[in-house]
Amino acid sequence: MSHSTEHHSRPEQSATLFIAASETDSNLYYATRFIAPDPFIYLEVKGERLMVMSDLEVDRARNQATVDRVLSYSELERRAKSQGVKDPGTIDVIHLVLQDAGLKDILVPPTFPFLHASRLQELGYRLRTKREPFYEQRVMKSDDEVRHIEAAQRATETAVAAAHRTLRRAEIRDNVLWLDGEVLTSERVKKLINVALMECDCVAQHTIVAGGEQACDPHDEGSGPLPAHRSIIFDVFPRSAGSRYFADMSRTVVRGTPSPELARLYHAVKDAQEEAITKIRDGADGAAIHQGICDRFEKAGYKTGLVNGRMQGYFHGTGHGVGLDIHEAPRISRTGSLLQEGHVVTVEPGLYYPGLGAVRIEDMVLVTKDGCRNLTNYPKVFELG
Amino acid sequence: MSHSTEHHSRPEQSATLFIAASETDSNLYYATRFIAPDPFIYLEVKGERLMVMSDLEVDRARNQATVDRVLSYSELERRAKSQGVKDPGTIDVIHLVLQDAGLKDILVPPTFPFLHASRLQELGYRLRTKREPFYEQRVMKSDDEVRHIEAAQRATETAVAAAHRTLRRAEIRDNVLWLDGEVLTSERVKKLINVALMECDCVAQHTIVAGGEQACDPHDEGSGPLPAHRSIIFDVFPRSAGSRYFADMSRTVVRGTPSPELARLYHAVKDAQEEAITKIRDGADGAAIHQGICDRFEKAGYKTGLVNGRMQGYFHGTGHGVGLDIHEAPRISRTGSLLQEGHVVTVEPGLYYPGLGAVRIEDMVLVTKDGCRNLTNYPKVFELG
Repeated sequence: MSHSTEHHSRPEQSATLFIAASETDSNLYYATRFIAPDPFIYLEVKGERLMVMSDLEVDRARNQATVDRVLSYSELERRAKSQGVKDPGTIDVIHLVLQDAGLKDILVPPTFPFLHASRLQELGYRLRTKREPFYEQRVMKSDDEVRHIEAAQRATETAVAAAHRTLRRAEIRDNVLWLDGEVLTSERVKKLINVALMECDCVAQHTIVAGGEQACDPHDEGSGPLPAHRSIIFDVFPRSAGSRYFADMSRTVVRGTPSPELARLYHAVKDAQEEAITKIRDGADGAAIHQGICDRFEKAGYKTGLVNGRMQGYFHGTGHGVGLDIHEAPRISRTGSLLQEGHVVTVEPGLYYPGLGAVRIEDMVLVTKDGCRNLTNYPKVFELG
Repeated sequence: MSHSTEHHSRPEQSATLFIAASETDSNLYYATRFIAPDPFIYLEVKGERLMVMSDLEVDRARNQATVDRVLSYSELERRAKSQGVKDPGTIDVIHLVLQDAGLKDILVPPTFPFLHASRLQELGYRLRTKREPFYEQRVMKSDDEVRHIEAAQRATETAVAAAHRTLRRAEIRDNVLWLDGEVLTSERVKKLINVALMECDCVAQHTIVAGGEQACDPHDEGSGPLPAHRSIIFDVFPRSAGSRYFADMSRTVVRGTPSPELARLYHAVKDAQEEAITKIRDGADGAAIHQGICDRFEKAGYKTGLVNGRMQGYFHGTGHGVGLDIHEAPRISRTGSLLQEGHVVTVEPGLYYPGLGAVRIEDMVLVTKDGCRNLTNYPKVFELG
């Protein structure tokens, strides 16, 4: 007993404080498992995890949040008024809780709002922060978390499969895809994917279906008629509405006949992606894996750099963690991270050459002791016919 | 000419700085009209509006963002290295731009991240912030913005109409709704609404279809079988994927026969909502409109307060602004705001009594000189039959 108390005593000199909306702050959702659209107060004080909630949210919070205690904002507000605070606000309410606990040191997330930080500092609190990952455990996915991510990836595959069936059904006229008497556009195919995902309770935003020149900008979502004979990048990364976990997958396809140069580009990316996956394991260095792909592309003659004021070649990272955020730690990139068992990361090299076209191929894998388990179960087929 | 220069000279002693993802920071999206999932740098320096973008985003930013100039992050990074900074980060890059401009004072949004603020203060910068609305113009909706909001509201109405048709088709068995041989659940109806919205390129999250006791918690999204003879609250607030503007509408319906007390509750809320709408005009006081509803409910015998440790009655605000955020200024609530021509606000009183049930009715209106224009075009029908 006394040992366990001692073990906790040092961090307990300091409170942890969030003022954020868990809808957009994944650390806060991770800590509370409670979704709210508007900012609320979360505190870790002497080993106790507290939320302070408005009358509107207090009952739902008591039912749903995985914290130790939910305090009523309006009760604390009344107490502040009774102590002479004229028009008590968020910081006055927090001040009461921290005075009760006798704490002056506060650990806040790196994103903690400047306005609130300034007010707390004026009241004599000492604030410090730490860099992401704020909750280190968040990068190590539990079995449940992996299941949530895989379920979202299954939905992604279902939606992309429906889109690829649609492309296969299209006709080619004047180097453009047509279906059911209409030009087949990026917008139409993205909507098909997003609706299919919503049918699986997954929310897709910024889905990419970009062909030809558009695909040469990695974040262009695509618009207008889809080209025949040129590569079309699909990048789909929905969030499960139920679990809040993301998935992420990219595939590149062509309808019609790719040029030999484009086919070579595809295989360069596919081979690099598959080689990178073989290097992923507990203890592997993300920066080295990324550099390996860069070197491989350079050796194959695929140069990276500015041409006519525009980047071409390979100019994004190789991968990122996926979880409650679509981009989270660790990184497989120039800045790198040490990969560890339990990480879920994407592996998504790409090559982008205006005039020729673009290819990106992305799987999501779970890092294991001896390698990785690919959480993606979708074929890599370039020519849809 | 000299006058116009002078007019701008005072604010130009100070830079404005954002480091945020425009995906989640609506002020930044408002300033740049550029969507990015990861944080980027935005600066207003001596009348010039600048973005600093990674190689991955720089071309797309130059094409899409409504700023004066897009700088390359990696070029500035190289310059910092050439000046001896070993491993330059975001703040080092900003430091270069601000040194070039000779500015030491920075205005940041209230949500500016604490980590970055601390680093800038260490470098000798003086930071200040202002409360929301950070961009005052954001609360005054332009004709284009109103059109975007109305388009999203039309989609909302279409989706809710489809859901209500489904409820009408349901049978009642053992006080529960059934359809096509299956129990009709909140989940099934929410999915129908969310898919219908996605068909209109609108992204719905946290759609509420909550019946009976569940509806007595205003933010309960609803789950399980929908009850007959009890009120069911629909609250639907999607965001247009194209324009990024939200809409918001709530309706309360019953299938079967409501108790006389429940029917009286419905009409109390409906009459209060419609009376409140008549009070909305340029110059009206949001707090007074809210208090008017509270008084009206009290007079009709609908008490508000804790009963058995749970809030009941009327315990949320009457309305909020809608735009690039679902909840934004102004407020029609206890804290209140002065309403002005060009505001778009919801009017959504509700009453919540465990045991009896809950009613909320919400329209979205545009404040005009002499009154308001209701942007909602959906009937208020309680009994679906």
